[in-house]
Amino acid sequence: MILGTVMGTVVSTRKMQNLVGYKLLLVEPVYGAREDMIVAGDTIGAGIGEMVLVTTDETTQHAIDREAPIDAFIVGIVDSPPILGK
Amino acid sequence: MILGTVMGTVVSTRKMQNLVGYKLLLVEPVYGAREDMIVAGDTIGAGIGEMVLVTTDETTQHAIDREAPIDAFIVGIVDSPPILGK
Amino acid sequence: MILGTVMGTVVSTRKMQNLVGYKLLLVEPVYGAREDMIVAGDTIGAGIGEMVLVTTDETTQHAIDREAPIDAFIVGIVDSPPILGK
Amino acid sequence: MILGTVMGTVVSTRKMQNLVGYKLLLVEPVYGAREDMIVAGDTIGAGIGEMVLVTTDETTQHAIDREAPIDAFIVGIVDSPPILGK
Amino acid sequence: MILGTVMGTVVSTRKMQNLVGYKLLLVEPVYGAREDMIVAGDTIGAGIGEMVLVTTDETTQHAIDREAPIDAFIVGIVDSPPILGK
Repeated sequence: MILGTVMGTVVSTRKMQNLVGYKLLLVEPVYGAREDMIVAGDTIGAGIGEMVLVTTDETTQHAIDREAPIDAFIVGIVDSPPILGK
Repeated sequence: MILGTVMGTVVSTRKMQNLVGYKLLLVEPVYGAREDMIVAGDTIGAGIGEMVLVTTDETTQHAIDREAPIDAFIVGIVDSPPILGK
Repeated sequence: MILGTVMGTVVSTRKMQNLVGYKLLLVEPVYGAREDMIVAGDTIGAGIGEMVLVTTDETTQHAIDREAPIDAFIVGIVDSPPILGK
Repeated sequence: MILGTVMGTVVSTRKMQNLVGYKLLLVEPVYGAREDMIVAGDTIGAGIGEMVLVTTDETTQHAIDREAPIDAFIVGIVDSPPILGK
Repeated sequence: MILGTVMGTVVSTRKMQNLVGYKLLLVEPVYGAREDMIVAGDTIGAGIGEMVLVTTDETTQHAIDREAPIDAFIVGIVDSPPILGK
């Protein structure tokens, strides 16, 4: 999974019906580059600035109740930034 | 998902039968590089210059009615560019 | 999908039985770098120098009749290079 | 699979129910860059500094008993760093 | 698929039960960078220095008899390096 920081919210009115109900958050990878910023679905309630765990590709389907065309999903909020070596 | 801008249309006459009926759009990632430009299927009706959400890999199959060999699909049109920190 | 140019043919005599029958073509991404060159299966009959659409990962399975361990497949031949903004 | 070194532990109290029970480890690729650092699930008991094999995407599901939204999983601990050419 | 060169062997004694029986080879992409080096399963019998075709992600499952958590697998040995333009 990617460790990322929630940077903003993405609003899309015209979208596929099976995406309705998911908050869409812009997430910047903690160890990656700005150009790897992705949009992830959220049902946990992650807020701006929080560090989150994002799972990708088809594994997102195990985070939701019904199938949906979404390839990144927030599966956890990290308690505190991990300390390398611990 | 990738946040991208629709840059053009791709026309393919000789293609797999189960790709017929999908508009194929060239999408440039908003935060990525030109070399990450991809071709995504579209049924929502995204236009040139519009900002869209693209899902990838096998999750595309949840955006279409029948199985098709397509690894990127437009699942939403973004209302306005997201503002970082909001 | 990736937009690519067919650069050559890959010949493999010792290969998995369920790969027999697919032409294997070396494809260079149009917008990517030489180091992103991939080998894709082909049943459409794409020729050297032609611009093609390549789908990847598990979505390749929707391009073939039986399951096969192949993560890139040519699904269309592009009529003419796309013009940005059209 | 990626060959990586375990760099730390990620603690997440607020996470999806089907992620409970997996240790989450921060893994840095041996041949890749720091920015490719990922978080992988672990049930083998890999320790900080150990070299591990990580499988990704949907193939993680074959490493666990029940489906879970996790796209990277440690599937082995490497005996000793591989020697190129042997 | 990736075209790669077999660079070495990876030995893992403590690994998942369903990985037992697969030789694990370190493969460097022919057109990619050293940092893209991956570990792939092998049942064909590829040797050090041989050029191979590697399939990735869930498509590996079509190369093996039973499901296994392995996201890269050698599916063919290339007869001779492909010549661009042929």
